[in-house]
This record gives sequence, C-alpha cells and structure tokens, in this order.
Amino acid sequence: MENCIFCKIVAGEIPAEKIYEDNETFAFLDIHPVNPGHTLVIPKHHSFNILDIPPEDWAAVAKTVHKLAKPIHDALGADGINLHMNNREHAGQVVDHPHVHLIPRFKGDGLPHWHGKAYKEGESKIVADKIKAAVQ
Amino acid sequence: MENCIFCKIVAGEIPAEKIYEDNETFAFLDIHPVNPGHTLVIPKHHSFNILDIPPEDWAAVAKTVHKLAKPIHDALGADGINLHMNNREHAGQVVDHPHVHLIPRFKGDGLPHWHGKAYKEGESKIVADKIKAAVQ
Repeated sequence: MENCIFCKIVAGEIPAEKIYEDNETFAFLDIHPVNPGHTLVIPKHHSFNILDIPPEDWAAVAKTVHKLAKPIHDALGADGINLHMNNREHAGQVVDHPHVHLIPRFKGDGLPHWHGKAYKEGESKIVADKIKAAVQ
Repeated sequence: MENCIFCKIVAGEIPAEKIYEDNETFAFLDIHPVNPGHTLVIPKHHSFNILDIPPEDWAAVAKTVHKLAKPIHDALGADGINLHMNNREHAGQVVDHPHVHLIPRFKGDGLPHWHGKAYKEGESKIVADKIKAAVQ
C-alpha cells in the first residue's frame, strides 16, 4: 500500500537488514531492537493487523515465525524468546501493517512482564459468555 | 503429559473457563488476567514452547488465535489486542506447554511496552549474518 513503510521495505524501496523471505512473507531486523536480534515477520500483502489480515496471510506469517524462532534463539545463544504482536494504537501498534516481533531474551535482561489479578466471583463466566457469543 | 496443568485442563481434570475448542486446540480464560478477557490458546498435544512445537500443532494454534482475536476484541469493546508468547523461563514462561496470550487492551490501561535502541554502526549486519547462517 502506498505510504506503508513495511510495504516499501518488501519492495526494496527502504533498506532493511533482511533475515528471510519467501513468496508470502518477509523478515528483517527491527531497527530499534529491545535486544539484539529482535526480528519482525510480516506478510508481503498489505493489511492492518490481526483484526483484518486474511487467514492465508496469517498462516504464512505464523509458519515463518515458527521457522525463525529457534534459529534466532540458538544463533544468539539466547535464554528464551518472546513473540509479540501489537494490534491497534492502544495496544502499541506503531506501523499499520501486521508484524510479529520475535525478541530473543537473555538471563538478567530485566525486561518487565505484565502481571494479572484474579477475577471477582462470577466475573469470568460473564466475560467468557460475551466472547463465546461473538465467536463464529 | 503427566503433571502438565494445561494437559489436565484439556482433559477436563482441572476446571477452566473454556472459550473455544476444536480437534487440535483449546482456548480458555487466564485465571490471572492482565485485562478481563485475557485468553490462552494452546495445542492439545503436549510440547514445551515455540522451540519444539511440531509445525502442524503450531499451525493449528495460529489458526485459532486468528479465529478468536477479533471476537475477543469486539465482544469486550476493546481498543486493541496484544498477542504474546513467552518461551523458556527467562522469557517469562511459567507453564511448560505452548500457550499464546490474547490480551484485550483498553485506552488508558497503562500497560507499559518495551522500548528499543538503535544498533551501533555495523552491529546489525553481524547479528543478521549469525541468524541467517542458522536458518535452514
């Protein structure tokens, strides 16, 4: 799509440190890595995020994520790896093209995780029922 | 697998607020949600994480993640949704069975994101070359 920075990377119009490419997907280093080796996997076909990506594009992205996670982890001697995907601005999405972050982790890197808290009595059933009614 | 809490949830031996189930996958509410509606998608077949999950199990998990993300987001009137997967202890993995977190986000919920910093001159090529050498 015109003016999409990730479409321009796929087209070779903006440089990127490419990790992998196939017919449907493209993977490259994030230029502002949380840790070295932080990689983005994107579909070549433009969409916005997980909410509108066609199933076939998502399947291809997921396949590439699986293909790259272990090599990234192993090649860098990591102690773990996170997969993140931010969908819409209030979830931290900055570029409006689907992208999965693969972030190698190292013991003691100090990156904080979000913590949850228990539901109140009866609350989880209400929430689950709302979601189940929306699942096709 | 014996003593795997998620295998026991799949088998119905431990209760969970189920959202969805098919032949390969199971989805249920996290009992300590970061936000209400925080859902976990898991394969029925046991493995450890993204580093050892068989491709067919991962494809099934990814398909269910895609199927549920929009209903969870829409049913709860969310302003976004995150996908997270923690692989190995130092990446925040607590239960040793692959699970993708779907976390609905709400404007102003205040959950912090990790921030990166630029590579030093020449560093990104060295990192990319290491990874590419490990990709089959």
